[in-house]
Amino acid sequence: MATYRVPGLSGERFSVIYGIAGTETEARERAEHIRHEQTVEFPPDLLPAGDIPDVVVGRLEDFTQSGPNYYQALISYAVETAGEDLVQFLNVVFGNISIKPGVRVERIVPPLSYLNTLRGPRFGQDGLRALTGVTDRPLICTALKPMGLSAEAVAEQAYQFALGGIDIIKDDHGLADQKFCSFDERVARCSDAVARANAKTGFKSIYMPNVTAPYGEIQKRSEKAKKAGAGGFLLCPGLVGLDVVRYLSENDDFALPIMAHPAFLGSYVTSDQNGLSHYALFGQLMRLAGADATVFPNYGGRFSFSKEECQGIARGCSEAMGEIKSIFPTPGGGMTTDRAQEMIEVYGKDFVLLIGGGLHRHGPDLVENSRYFLRMLENL
Amino acid sequence: MATYRVPGLSGERFSVIYGIAGTETEARERAEHIRHEQTVEFPPDLLPAGDIPDVVVGRLEDFTQSGPNYYQALISYAVETAGEDLVQFLNVVFGNISIKPGVRVERIVPPLSYLNTLRGPRFGQDGLRALTGVTDRPLICTALKPMGLSAEAVAEQAYQFALGGIDIIKDDHGLADQKFCSFDERVARCSDAVARANAKTGFKSIYMPNVTAPYGEIQKRSEKAKKAGAGGFLLCPGLVGLDVVRYLSENDDFALPIMAHPAFLGSYVTSDQNGLSHYALFGQLMRLAGADATVFPNYGGRFSFSKEECQGIARGCSEAMGEIKSIFPTPGGGMTTDRAQEMIEVYGKDFVLLIGGGLHRHGPDLVENSRYFLRMLENL
Repeated sequence: MATYRVPGLSGERFSVIYGIAGTETEARERAEHIRHEQTVEFPPDLLPAGDIPDVVVGRLEDFTQSGPNYYQALISYAVETAGEDLVQFLNVVFGNISIKPGVRVERIVPPLSYLNTLRGPRFGQDGLRALTGVTDRPLICTALKPMGLSAEAVAEQAYQFALGGIDIIKDDHGLADQKFCSFDERVARCSDAVARANAKTGFKSIYMPNVTAPYGEIQKRSEKAKKAGAGGFLLCPGLVGLDVVRYLSENDDFALPIMAHPAFLGSYVTSDQNGLSHYALFGQLMRLAGADATVFPNYGGRFSFSKEECQGIARGCSEAMGEIKSIFPTPGGGMTTDRAQEMIEVYGKDFVLLIGGGLHRHGPDLVENSRYFLRMLENL
Repeated sequence: MATYRVPGLSGERFSVIYGIAGTETEARERAEHIRHEQTVEFPPDLLPAGDIPDVVVGRLEDFTQSGPNYYQALISYAVETAGEDLVQFLNVVFGNISIKPGVRVERIVPPLSYLNTLRGPRFGQDGLRALTGVTDRPLICTALKPMGLSAEAVAEQAYQFALGGIDIIKDDHGLADQKFCSFDERVARCSDAVARANAKTGFKSIYMPNVTAPYGEIQKRSEKAKKAGAGGFLLCPGLVGLDVVRYLSENDDFALPIMAHPAFLGSYVTSDQNGLSHYALFGQLMRLAGADATVFPNYGGRFSFSKEECQGIARGCSEAMGEIKSIFPTPGGGMTTDRAQEMIEVYGKDFVLLIGGGLHRHGPDLVENSRYFLRMLENL
């Protein structure tokens, strides 16, 4: 058979570390499966000799035992398999193999040149600190809720939170474009409310509406939000695709910070033998896509992430990764004064503290409650 | 506290059956958690009295034991929580609760009026049969691969498959817009190749390019494909969001059948205590969104779906669901003559048989191989 040449292969590769369950023999078989399945998806013996088996098919670069019946396989892929396209990059990393139990993406290892094709977060930690004027403490964020309130009522909440000094006031991720609280009215009222409060206080609170929306509507809602004076975007990549984060972050017409929310993504991390690691999904991938802050449930709350998993996310947010900026881990849930101290010990000062019910429970006055939690954070 | 009224609530509700792991006490607690988490995400005792707790919060309508330490909870939601918006519908069904281990969406029960707001599949089984002219046997589909081939080479494959009478010739889901096989060139060449073959044979083979692409590019690629003469679209909703299926299927400018591919969705079904059931994800949701065919790995192949899970998908494709058309289950992998007979016993005649490697392995001549498998199907 003639040797088949694939034009334009640079020789550069990116890698993925997969955790693989099984005996050594089983795990090696699975690694073989992965490197073919994620690229050519074709019987190896039927591939035309040449660049396809030699370069296009994934390569097993390293294989080590990492636990009882658990192995780590480092598999590299030609950068040309994924182009400069985040969607296809995800497809190569975990497309078909997501269907295989016992295979988990532990870590993505992109090469520098590839990282340079992704802009990553526009703001990152430094940019978000500059926007909000918060230099030396964790940022504090809350959500407008409960679902069912009118746009007027959530705007009044936004006003009080902003008066109280909450740095980021976001829509609850369940606020979309419901009849009882339409996107247009909510965004206009809340943006205005936060601006009025800022004019009084001198703070730089920002309002982040939820722009998670039907395909084709996302850019329209983002444009409207920008025009209305919103200070950022909340987005659920699990509902609309991670690439929407990339789209919003790269678009110079928007140029607002993005907070990524984990809705509909939980199934990727509920098994330690399938899916993606917390580090890879909520740290690396959100950051690669361009989120400036990544929301996740803090350990010890009403969900089940462990402390180590949360720390993994925080590492993925700030570990060196080419020119890609560091972003804010945004742990949420179950906030109390005691927990804030512990969170600073775990996350340092570079995180966004997401507080929901606690702000409402502390007392009847949302302005006072906000001030109370803000003072507490400033004094830690 | 004054009673808070939410305007515009119709009283109509849709429901979700969740499978919940745990003791009865634990499972009941989880059901309580679900109905709040998926709607108001707010401490119940702090909700304003009135419509929010009474109507907006999910309602536990039924709770039964379905196995040892396993329960089924039927929870209903006001249709207004999700509007007429598939993205927000998914969010209410499984957004935050995806993060909770031990909770699985078994089945979605939409009310008729809600189904009427979704167009669903434009073609469905009957439409796709009409397009391809296949009346009384399963349709046969194959994929252009391996990745690394030029556009010219895959078009030559497409030509041979079409000459041989394969009904649907789709891009492998790994073909995106790589330098070695650009979308534009591939779609032009393959559409042309299939048209030339059809002109010779009198068959009505259709070519379905992969339009899974970056946000904002999907509609452009779909337009190009339609213009070039493609006969349908392949899409990976796991990479770009299920709503893109809805977008493509509703858009009268495109008006081509859609085949949904399971890439990056596997993690939703690898655990039987989290995620979504095969029936709900690959059957109900793909169909609700508007896919005309839903690809999944057949049981007994290189993935791990069971026969029962595959049958569940097939049920989800055709069970009565308002005005929504029935669609084709499209099991793939490991096709042999023996298996085709068995597949007909399991799926009936209303499915698309997806055959990959087998078509290449049977002999060196793809036209002859295609004819061989087609004859075999016709004679079963």
